[in-house]
Amino acid sequence: MSKAYTDLVKEQKDVATLGAIGSLLGWDQETYMPPDGAGSRADQQELLSTIAHQRRISPRIGTLIEECEASNGALDETLKASVREMRRDYDLATKLPVELVAELAKTQSLSQDAWKHARASDNFAMFAPWLEKVLNLTRKKAQCYGVPAGGELYDALLDEYEPGATAVQIEAIFTPLQARLSSLVARLCDSPKKPADALKGIVVPQEQQHAFGLEVLKAIGFDLSAGRLDTTAHPFCSGFGPGDTRLTTRYNTSSCLEPLSSTMHEAGHGIYEQGLPKATDFGTPLAEAVSLGIHESQSRMWENLVGRSRGFWTWALPVAKRHFAPAIDGLTLEQVYASVNQVQRSFIRVEADEATYNLHVMLRFGLERDLISGALPVKDLPGEWNKRFKQLLGLDVTSDRVGCLQDVHWSFGLVGYFPTYTLGNLYAAQFWQTINKALPDLNGQMARGEFGPLKSWLNEHIHKHGRRYRAGELCQRVTGQPLSPEPLMEYLESKYAPLYGV
Amino acid sequence: MSKAYTDLVKEQKDVATLGAIGSLLGWDQETYMPPDGAGSRADQQELLSTIAHQRRISPRIGTLIEECEASNGALDETLKASVREMRRDYDLATKLPVELVAELAKTQSLSQDAWKHARASDNFAMFAPWLEKVLNLTRKKAQCYGVPAGGELYDALLDEYEPGATAVQIEAIFTPLQARLSSLVARLCDSPKKPADALKGIVVPQEQQHAFGLEVLKAIGFDLSAGRLDTTAHPFCSGFGPGDTRLTTRYNTSSCLEPLSSTMHEAGHGIYEQGLPKATDFGTPLAEAVSLGIHESQSRMWENLVGRSRGFWTWALPVAKRHFAPAIDGLTLEQVYASVNQVQRSFIRVEADEATYNLHVMLRFGLERDLISGALPVKDLPGEWNKRFKQLLGLDVTSDRVGCLQDVHWSFGLVGYFPTYTLGNLYAAQFWQTINKALPDLNGQMARGEFGPLKSWLNEHIHKHGRRYRAGELCQRVTGQPLSPEPLMEYLESKYAPLYGV
Repeated sequence: MSKAYTDLVKEQKDVATLGAIGSLLGWDQETYMPPDGAGSRADQQELLSTIAHQRRISPRIGTLIEECEASNGALDETLKASVREMRRDYDLATKLPVELVAELAKTQSLSQDAWKHARASDNFAMFAPWLEKVLNLTRKKAQCYGVPAGGELYDALLDEYEPGATAVQIEAIFTPLQARLSSLVARLCDSPKKPADALKGIVVPQEQQHAFGLEVLKAIGFDLSAGRLDTTAHPFCSGFGPGDTRLTTRYNTSSCLEPLSSTMHEAGHGIYEQGLPKATDFGTPLAEAVSLGIHESQSRMWENLVGRSRGFWTWALPVAKRHFAPAIDGLTLEQVYASVNQVQRSFIRVEADEATYNLHVMLRFGLERDLISGALPVKDLPGEWNKRFKQLLGLDVTSDRVGCLQDVHWSFGLVGYFPTYTLGNLYAAQFWQTINKALPDLNGQMARGEFGPLKSWLNEHIHKHGRRYRAGELCQRVTGQPLSPEPLMEYLESKYAPLYGV
Repeated sequence: MSKAYTDLVKEQKDVATLGAIGSLLGWDQETYMPPDGAGSRADQQELLSTIAHQRRISPRIGTLIEECEASNGALDETLKASVREMRRDYDLATKLPVELVAELAKTQSLSQDAWKHARASDNFAMFAPWLEKVLNLTRKKAQCYGVPAGGELYDALLDEYEPGATAVQIEAIFTPLQARLSSLVARLCDSPKKPADALKGIVVPQEQQHAFGLEVLKAIGFDLSAGRLDTTAHPFCSGFGPGDTRLTTRYNTSSCLEPLSSTMHEAGHGIYEQGLPKATDFGTPLAEAVSLGIHESQSRMWENLVGRSRGFWTWALPVAKRHFAPAIDGLTLEQVYASVNQVQRSFIRVEADEATYNLHVMLRFGLERDLISGALPVKDLPGEWNKRFKQLLGLDVTSDRVGCLQDVHWSFGLVGYFPTYTLGNLYAAQFWQTINKALPDLNGQMARGEFGPLKSWLNEHIHKHGRRYRAGELCQRVTGQPLSPEPLMEYLESKYAPLYGV
């Protein structure tokens, strides 16, 4: 390892440490901060972002990257990839003026607070001026990054979350997928056979749900000495650095097993964060996630491919019965399997089933693309949301709280983020086919509560590489194929056709 | 207001904001951080302290202070005081090399973690090397500050917490006070009459204690929209800035009303923090506490002078009965008053009664003075603690967990901090005499749950001034007298003599 690289890592570690502190401030804002702390929290985020950004774009880092590039021969393939990704980050960061970063950080923090209140009181007008502000700043950010030749403003934002992806590419994947999903959803929803929802309306105290969630986390391999689980309005996962990865979930739901979906989803993110080699490489791209799409593949895999499978519930049902006794004492495995695999058109993305979920994402992709281009003014968002929702999911949205106010993302300027959810579902299904070939007894292992082999496989094939490979390359290496919609569609068809008798 | 002052405040606000972030990291470490996060938390504190210190000692701040001093005529008395205190802080800060500040921050964070584990497993040897390290760094810090003429190393540390105080002055106050307290404690403990401890052994679930604590906080005027209450091994209060002041308490005690003492103690600190004019002056000395002694006067006042009074319990007992029903349904006001005013020699400082408490402080003052001078080697601390404890409090210490490992302070390098607890008791008693003249119906107000007049008096006479007056000057202004041991001794005598029939 060259001295330039070692020096570079030292600088980058400081930048990452400042980022970890900022994440803690964000986590605290969502979990424990008292309401009146919002103003000073925004000041803190603004100052910290400014300091972090100044460090991130320091000429010293630029010089050290150049030195590493010049003496590239001295580095092995892994370190070459690390330098390649540092170059990408540095070039992107240096395009953003410090003032914009500071203003964004402060506005995001305040806007997120405004969103929280607007959502609680179902009042879009309260949030609209903040969304306007955040979108303006986000547009400025996109302009600083620069629009790729032949592309659009949206691409500059998307690239931050899914390096190299463009709106046109996403559209090319989404359009045919939407047709296939809509057709599947229509067949399932129109079928006279409906699997019974035996769990519906069975609620148990929050403490029991929390204890059950913790036992599942432990079993599937989320390390609770190096993490924790809290409650928030909108579940999320934050990885702060070595030894500290935090999940949140929510318990205010209509059935006693539903919260486990959020918990397992965030645990999937958390297991990825804990599987990254932060102990040795924190601060470098080698200890960071490939892309949001790959990150989401991990969360959706644990949430759905594991968490809605017969194998998983063979083990988990007796555990749930122990925690919830006597609430679900009488339920059979088949009843629970049918119950956690209900397909229906509904309002809330994070509560949507596997078949309808991606339609929710496609709605947001279309809307945010138009918000950023300016084709859709903020004031028209609720009406347009409701109109397109009706077209896509056939329901009349009854309130903005279950409509365009339901997600935190836009309040935070996270535009270009939503499509990565569907990419995640596609990657997850494709990885899952490969995993099932590598671990032929996977279903049996899950039924016995043995999640170690699955976690180790993910650690070995996906987590440990950090950003060494870009998403497409990783998919090709892991599955031998480029990303395809087939594995997801095959999985959905083969699972839901028998349940719904279609 | 001059431009130089405005510019100076802007700089200082950033320094204070970085300090607030550091406090949040500290709060999180004690409340919610997972165990394996300790290493990266130390890195975060080290980096943040370095950045904050570099800002604090920046030549720009020095120049702006000089400009303000040169154009002093343009400032009113309050702003002159603000500049005077900024000068003090700047001169102290510039004496510390950045490397020392960074090393201290990192070592404190790790050492605190080591203390936590050592205390839990009652293993002094586990903590000793960390204490050694922290003491060495603390000594270095004191040397940087410089020993005042005719003084000792300890003075340099004490001055940080209680500006202008010296070990010799403290000794001059403590020595006669110790004799009077020891004599009082002996008379009380030797008396054949003992007030019955009707509460002893009555425990209630933690959630009930927490709900009761919250109701009391609300009633006495701690603003829970701008603060919160959590649980930690060692109770503390952290003021992070405008709108965010956090208290912690603990519930693992032998009686159901005991935790309220910690809660009210920290609330006293919290009400002071919330009473400082942070909304307008955050970052300047005008929004900061005078000294730790004055801070402690507020916590001890709410804990003891309010929280162990007949007036308070006239209101609070029915509230407690409602929360704890049926555990204390049958208790009378006089039984509870006697129960919360038990005097006995015991091991734990934070659980000690008002009569013995200051003896615990004096023990620590003597020991830490010898630790810093080097007269007492770390390895001899447990033995020396136990020996002096026996002399002062007549008990054989049964384990280090209830001996020299009980307090967090030294793990954090907080040497010179303990004596401010007794100064706080003295100030509290002296203020209390003045308050009772100003609010002749105070006892009646408390009995009716009306704590507003007391809180407003404290806001008006103490809190709102920030650091405008030094402790001694504030005491003289508020009470018309210099600090004296008489009010405390009169209070203790008049309260405990009837209870113990002496």
